[in-house]
Amino acid sequence: MLTRPDRLWTLGEEDIEALEIGAAILGTGGGGSPYIGKLRARQALREGNKLRILPLEDLPDDAKVVALGGIGAPLISHERIKEGREGLRCVRALEERLGFKADAIACEEIGGQNAMEPLITASLAGLPVVDGDGMGRAFPEMQMTTYSIYGHRSTPSVMCDPHGNVVIFDHAISETWHERMARACVVAQGGASTLASAPMSGAFVRRFSIPNSYTKAIALGRAVREARRRHEDPIAAVCEKENGRVVHTGKIVDLKRHLRGGFVTGEALIEGFDAHQGSRGSVLIQNENLVFKRDGTVEVVVPDLIIILDIDSGNAITTEMLRYGQRVAVLAVPCHPLLATPEALEVVGPKGFGFHDIVYRPMAGAQHEEAPVS
Amino acid sequence: MLTRPDRLWTLGEEDIEALEIGAAILGTGGGGSPYIGKLRARQALREGNKLRILPLEDLPDDAKVVALGGIGAPLISHERIKEGREGLRCVRALEERLGFKADAIACEEIGGQNAMEPLITASLAGLPVVDGDGMGRAFPEMQMTTYSIYGHRSTPSVMCDPHGNVVIFDHAISETWHERMARACVVAQGGASTLASAPMSGAFVRRFSIPNSYTKAIALGRAVREARRRHEDPIAAVCEKENGRVVHTGKIVDLKRHLRGGFVTGEALIEGFDAHQGSRGSVLIQNENLVFKRDGTVEVVVPDLIIILDIDSGNAITTEMLRYGQRVAVLAVPCHPLLATPEALEVVGPKGFGFHDIVYRPMAGAQHEEAPVS
Repeated sequence: MLTRPDRLWTLGEEDIEALEIGAAILGTGGGGSPYIGKLRARQALREGNKLRILPLEDLPDDAKVVALGGIGAPLISHERIKEGREGLRCVRALEERLGFKADAIACEEIGGQNAMEPLITASLAGLPVVDGDGMGRAFPEMQMTTYSIYGHRSTPSVMCDPHGNVVIFDHAISETWHERMARACVVAQGGASTLASAPMSGAFVRRFSIPNSYTKAIALGRAVREARRRHEDPIAAVCEKENGRVVHTGKIVDLKRHLRGGFVTGEALIEGFDAHQGSRGSVLIQNENLVFKRDGTVEVVVPDLIIILDIDSGNAITTEMLRYGQRVAVLAVPCHPLLATPEALEVVGPKGFGFHDIVYRPMAGAQHEEAPVS
Repeated sequence: MLTRPDRLWTLGEEDIEALEIGAAILGTGGGGSPYIGKLRARQALREGNKLRILPLEDLPDDAKVVALGGIGAPLISHERIKEGREGLRCVRALEERLGFKADAIACEEIGGQNAMEPLITASLAGLPVVDGDGMGRAFPEMQMTTYSIYGHRSTPSVMCDPHGNVVIFDHAISETWHERMARACVVAQGGASTLASAPMSGAFVRRFSIPNSYTKAIALGRAVREARRRHEDPIAAVCEKENGRVVHTGKIVDLKRHLRGGFVTGEALIEGFDAHQGSRGSVLIQNENLVFKRDGTVEVVVPDLIIILDIDSGNAITTEMLRYGQRVAVLAVPCHPLLATPEALEVVGPKGFGFHDIVYRPMAGAQHEEAPVS
């Protein structure tokens, strides 16, 4: 099927190490730590499987591409390790249900754990992973992908758990209904399963993926490692790679955090120091970092990326790992233009998270390319 | 497919009225009121559909029989009327998934609302309903059928809601896992959906159904109506029809009732009068009436039927309709022998409901036929 197999990029262990760092940063506080996923991907490599990335532009129009990822609470996958072939069972059951063969695997979410799952499943299936994703970051719900936003109907989908249960969401009347039913079911399955969505055409994936996600996440991780090796500032390296800027530096002096409906919600207050001495930042959270305010005024809003890094190591701090007293830098990175269109903002803008009184304005200084869809 | 179509019993409106009464009594406090279902069945009749019952012995060995019923909280189906074709969509999706044509519909649960659902769906599909069911009463969970107990694997199953969503439980590693996932999903769908299970062979259904459920439930309802018409005691009529006896008469003087995990749980205290003056009865509840005690001593235990009737009208009182001050009769009716085998008691005996310190003993005076399975 692939027209240019010579252009496949075969990942090595060093790439996986870099992807772990890059994906954690792009998780914007959510998506869970990719650490366990990295170990699983490395094991797949050591067992002789190939982790291969397919450039987006090499995807034929009529290729059948299956997007997949973990669904559930990221923390659970640290406590209960996956059985390992959940994703492969999903792909096989989907192929059987619809009578087709998948040509490639796509990533739903490059931020956090879900950067690794497509690679692992694809390696077991002998397929490549498309160099793109549906978020360019992490979001908490399934309808929050560019695939769904730009018209893909993700059912029939298949969800598999580590026990061997297989559920087919055969038809959902909307992407939100799909999310609602799958979320209830994953909780019954123990809180961490894998889901593969109805296949997309290569033409659709080329047009509506956030492009080059794996290339960029791995390059980002490499830049951080390189800076550390040279004893340079890893945070500056992240800003340079991602066209971002440090909007705040300070110490966490107050933290409200609740588990509500399966989501981590709350607010972190960060008393400024260094260049931000005298100002107080706050980050509103729902799994991901959603809104950054300075002294009560909104400065950065989802879908732009709000990233909290440990100020010394440059390590990403996920929302569930925030602690009183941590010394952090808050970075803002402009989202991809596909997330900033009116139809995208309905789903992944502040309204999509219940912030009805906050209007999304692109980050000051962000250079948005024109979005390729009206 | 049917060898003796002349033996089909076509129901009329009077049969449906009688079934409403009989099914409510056999609900043993649960299963919900069949009232709305009766209205829907009557409408189906008036629109020219046929409600037909097939004698169990006329079911060919190789017939493909699909059992179905409502799943969720009975109360919801009184507040949000079904769209009406949920069951038919389930059957059609199941046929498509597995590549077969259903020959007949079976009833999961003759007690309560679920007596009506198979009739309505079968009438829309132009199929008969087998004269049997999987409980001979009502139970709260899906694995509590003779079909599941005696070896039928109920997946793949299909669940449809009134909105148009379709979920296939393609494989569950056990009947309990099937119940767990479907229960979570039905809550997400609004709390009242319809589910059709993987087809059973005619031979299996003949052997492991509680036999003649529709015939008996309709005869029971007729006996109650006839007693009322003659100003005789309807409660005596129920006892006579069902080989039951009145174990207590009295007034409800205390009622503990909680909603816990989607179930109604609690206990009703009944201060005796008439022949039971001076003794205090109590009924332990989980959706259905499960245990009857007199002055602290267990007398009747699930799966035997414990039925609470209004002492004047003989109307069945469901657990959610119990009220302080009601004057009631408590009836005990021996369960069918298929529910009293060791393998059945594992699932539908006191242990199946968490009463680990209560041992099932058949009702004193019950004449159990020998169970047809070892």
